[in-house]
This record gives sequence, C-alpha cells and structure tokens, in this order.
Amino acid sequence: MKLSTIYEPVQKELAEVENQFRLLVESERTTFPDLYKMLSHILIGGKVIRPALTLLAGRFYNYDTTKLLPMATASELLHIATLVHDDAIDKSDVRRWRQTINKIWGEDKAILLGDFLFAKAGEFTTATGNLRAVMLFTQTLATISQGELRQSFDAFNLEQTRKDYIQRISGKTAALFSMATETGAILSQAPEESVKILKEYGYNLGIAFQIVDDILDFIGSEEEMGKPIGSDLGQGTLTLPSMLLLEHRPEDNPVKRLFQKRDKQENVKQAIELIRNSPIVQKCYTAASDYCAKACRNLDPLPNDSKRQTLVELANYVVNRKG
Amino acid sequence: MKLSTIYEPVQKELAEVENQFRLLVESERTTFPDLYKMLSHILIGGKVIRPALTLLAGRFYNYDTTKLLPMATASELLHIATLVHDDAIDKSDVRRWRQTINKIWGEDKAILLGDFLFAKAGEFTTATGNLRAVMLFTQTLATISQGELRQSFDAFNLEQTRKDYIQRISGKTAALFSMATETGAILSQAPEESVKILKEYGYNLGIAFQIVDDILDFIGSEEEMGKPIGSDLGQGTLTLPSMLLLEHRPEDNPVKRLFQKRDKQENVKQAIELIRNSPIVQKCYTAASDYCAKACRNLDPLPNDSKRQTLVELANYVVNRKG
Repeated sequence: MKLSTIYEPVQKELAEVENQFRLLVESERTTFPDLYKMLSHILIGGKVIRPALTLLAGRFYNYDTTKLLPMATASELLHIATLVHDDAIDKSDVRRWRQTINKIWGEDKAILLGDFLFAKAGEFTTATGNLRAVMLFTQTLATISQGELRQSFDAFNLEQTRKDYIQRISGKTAALFSMATETGAILSQAPEESVKILKEYGYNLGIAFQIVDDILDFIGSEEEMGKPIGSDLGQGTLTLPSMLLLEHRPEDNPVKRLFQKRDKQENVKQAIELIRNSPIVQKCYTAASDYCAKACRNLDPLPNDSKRQTLVELANYVVNRKG
Repeated sequence: MKLSTIYEPVQKELAEVENQFRLLVESERTTFPDLYKMLSHILIGGKVIRPALTLLAGRFYNYDTTKLLPMATASELLHIATLVHDDAIDKSDVRRWRQTINKIWGEDKAILLGDFLFAKAGEFTTATGNLRAVMLFTQTLATISQGELRQSFDAFNLEQTRKDYIQRISGKTAALFSMATETGAILSQAPEESVKILKEYGYNLGIAFQIVDDILDFIGSEEEMGKPIGSDLGQGTLTLPSMLLLEHRPEDNPVKRLFQKRDKQENVKQAIELIRNSPIVQKCYTAASDYCAKACRNLDPLPNDSKRQTLVELANYVVNRKG
C-alpha cells in the first residue's frame, strides 16, 4: 500500500505540519537570510512518518489538533535536527537526493543549524502545554544522543553482539518512534493502558524500521534511497546484515578486513555483493517482520476498527518499503 | 570583591548544583563508561555565574529551591553544552585550563555530547514543572544558536557595525544571562514588573560580561583565562576591541590583513600589541561599565536591601574580573 493512502485519515493535518515548516522558514527570510536559505533547503520532503505516527496515535481518543499538530511538527523537526548532526558527523554529502547542509555550508553551520532545530522542536513541544510531553521530548533527545554516541564509540569494533545492535537502534531510532506515538496518546487523553500500548507499538515499529533501513543500505538503490549505499559500513558501523556476514564467514571476510585496515572502497563493495547474494537479506527481513508483528500484536487490546487497521498498514509499509 | 564572597547567600544551593552534576556523571559510570569519562571531564569547574544568577534572582520573592535548583542546574548545563559545540566549531584545544572534548575525543563525539547536555538541561528545566520557564529555555537555545550562526556567517567579514556586534552578543551571551535571572524571578513567583526588572538586569549584565570577555581575549593572560589569547580574532570574529582598532587605523591594519589574507599568526600578535598599547582597552571598558551601570539601574525599583546589593556587587565583579 502507498504511504499517501495510509496517511489519508490525517492528510489535512500533515499538510498543516508542512505549513508550519513553511512559516518557520519564512520567519527568517528578511531577518536572517542565510538561516532562511539553510531552512528552505532542509525543511522539505521526507516520509513524515514520525508526525504521521503522532497524529494516527491521537485518533483513538480525543483528537485535539491544537495539541497534536505542534507535537507532530516537533517530532519531525527533532528528526531533521538529528539528521543534520549525523550528516556532519559522518561527513555525508547527499541525503534525500540533495546535498547535505555540511556539504554546502560546512560542518560548523550544520552543528549550529541542528541546535537551532532542536530548540524549535522544543518550542513546538512546549506549545502543547503538556509537561509530560515536554519531559518525554527532552528524554528522547537524551536517548537519541546516547544511541548515536554508542554507535560512534563502537565504530570499527568487531566485538559487538546482536544485543548491542538492538540497544543502539533502540536509542537512535525506536526512541523517537515511541515518543511520537506515546505523545499522540497522551495529548489525546488516552487512558494509561492505551498510552502504553501505543508507545510499545511505536517502539517495535521503530526497531523494524531501522532494521529495514540497515538492509536497504546494502540492497537498496541510490535512486530510491536518495543517498549512497553501503555508507554505514564505510563509517565503521556494524548493522544486522554485516553482523550476520561476520557470523556466516568467520574467516576471509571483507568486513573484518575493512575494520582492521580501514580500506574502504573494495571491501564495502565486496560486503554488499556477498550480502546481496546470500540468505542474510531474508534473515534480516525476518527479524524486521518479527518486530512489525510484535508492533501489531501490541495493538490487540484496542478496538479492531479502521484506526487500528491504519497502524497495521503502516507497519506493513515499513517492512516492504524500498526507500 | 571575590566571587565566593558574592555567592555567599546561595553557597549551599550552588554546592547542590554541583552535586546534581556529580549525580549525572555517576549515573553513566557503569551503563556507559565512555560517556561517564566525557561527563567527568566537562562537568567540573567554571564560574557558575548563570546558576548563581537564577538563585540570586529567586531570592527577592518566594525562594523555592525545589524549582530554583533544577533551573540553576539547567542554566549551567545549557551553557556548558554551547561551549562544547563552540569548541568543536572553532577547533579549540584548551578551555578552562583543560583539553577540550573535541581535542581528546574528536569533533563527532563533541557534537553528540553537546546534544546530550542540551537534552539534560531540558530535563532539569522541565523538572521545575513550569511551562513558562520551559518555553523560555527553548527560546533561549534558539536565540543562542542564531547568535552563533550570525557570528559564523560574519567570520572574516570587515563590513560589520557596532549594532551587528551588540545583536550578536545579545544572542550568544546576554540571552542566557537574562534567561537565568528571568526564570529565577518566574519560579519564585515574582510579580510581572519584577520579572521584567530582573530579566533586563540579566540582559545588560550579559552584554557587559561578553564585552569584558572580548577585551580579555586581547589583554588577558592565558594563565588566568584558561585558554589561548587572541582566539576570537584568529577565528575571524570581529569583537569590540578589533572593531575599534579598524576605526582607529583605517589604513595599515593587521585585522584587515588577517581578514583578507587569512594569515593568522603574525597579524593576531600585532593586533594584540596595538590594542594593548592604545586607548581602545579603556574605551571598551567604558562600554562594558555603561552596560553594568544600566543593569544596576534596572534594579532601582526593587527594595534597596542586601539582596539587591549582591546583584550590584556581581555586576561590579563582571567588569573587574581577570578571567
């Protein structure tokens, strides 16, 4: 199913999130033209899956757009801010089919723009008037930074377990997915059991999303992904596919060679080849599907209506997406 | 007057802020030893002027430490987070007599540690339970990032006015000073007139503080400053002393040469020499004193008691400090 079909029930609100982005960009046009240019460049496109999650989770109880809209906007801004910093750290050149902020304006501007976007995300969250949502937001930023720090400290380290991997992607991806659904539930005055249900759905969906992301970094196409393939491995980041490759070929292994000699080009290419032509891809998809199934099972206590069905469709989309 | 004497009325609470830092550091000791090491390195020392401002501003009305303490802790954490990012941007090696995070752990870790500290500052602010304080906090982070961005975009640009300079330091320094005093007032349930008074005191004090900082970057000693001298100019940042030097010597000028040819070493040294042996230093101190006097005048409507006197002493300290 296409994402636009799944988003249909919250289409109007997602357009309003985009409108908030436009207003934020425009607010700097005359006062700070350089910031205006950077914001115009970065606040565009994307799958807007995190704001969609906030809105879709908010539909089960009191769908109050005065609170859900700023929170949805904040979820996406927080996500974009982390991307801007990640790209600066990884010295990535391309993201979402466009040059990165650090590529065009340099790393220093990317650091500061990311900080500015964190702040704006915080402002939108605070505009919900809900302290619990604000606390969740700020704890999520702490968790994401910790997850990214763990990834950075683990770079080029072969001694990593699958548990380490799950811990890391919990922090760097699932925390924000679960924040998106949990705040949606809180801001629509869901009872505590439902807050927990929707939070856990978001968490498991986030894990699945990241596993698929990590698969696509090996088997995806640059055209559909909007960024180069094999970049995680090139950065020294072990993900599920490269971990499985290490297990499958404990001896002569390009990942091992890459981590030991930092000899990127040939080894990344070889690892991609080996993973593509092995049962590893299927194994990883099974792991992702398991988390998606778990996410859907989390929803079981909720009434089996079209609102719940939409979240199930979104989970299916996450596993089947190509970019 | 010594800072420790001025801080005397809030000494116990400042010790508690330091204790909060220790707890934050310790909380990572076993779960994430690398983060623990970075936090132990950075959450130490400093003049703690921002938390002191929150606490001292909070003394005029209902001195509620359950709210003022987390806010004071947040003010300092926010400050430290911005320093970590600034040092990464400037590629500085030394700060507070110690190696910087980026020098020891690299720029990528510094970006992520800064993000983590922003998040923790946000958590402490949210722990006040006061949405107005939270909104101020997040708006201040936006303002600081904008101020730093303006500085970055203005690097090596000779066409800057004194108005640009004041606008820039308003953002990068005075915003946080005024947040510190304003939140102190808000959290002690000060009436709106007093919130405004204490906010403006903080703002003017912040401008004075930054002007003195900019003077000390030319006339200070490395031993007292805990970091190299002349670093702003080396980064291409025009501050009040270098602006005045440009005005005094429109022709043969080391700042001009530096900005045109990026030929650092000799020109920074020359600029320092010329500024030290000219009336520029005195002129800059007059500007700083004017802002301090303004800050003290802001306090006029408050009762003329020892609490107000402490803020006046702090303003005097700011102009007379050597590091």
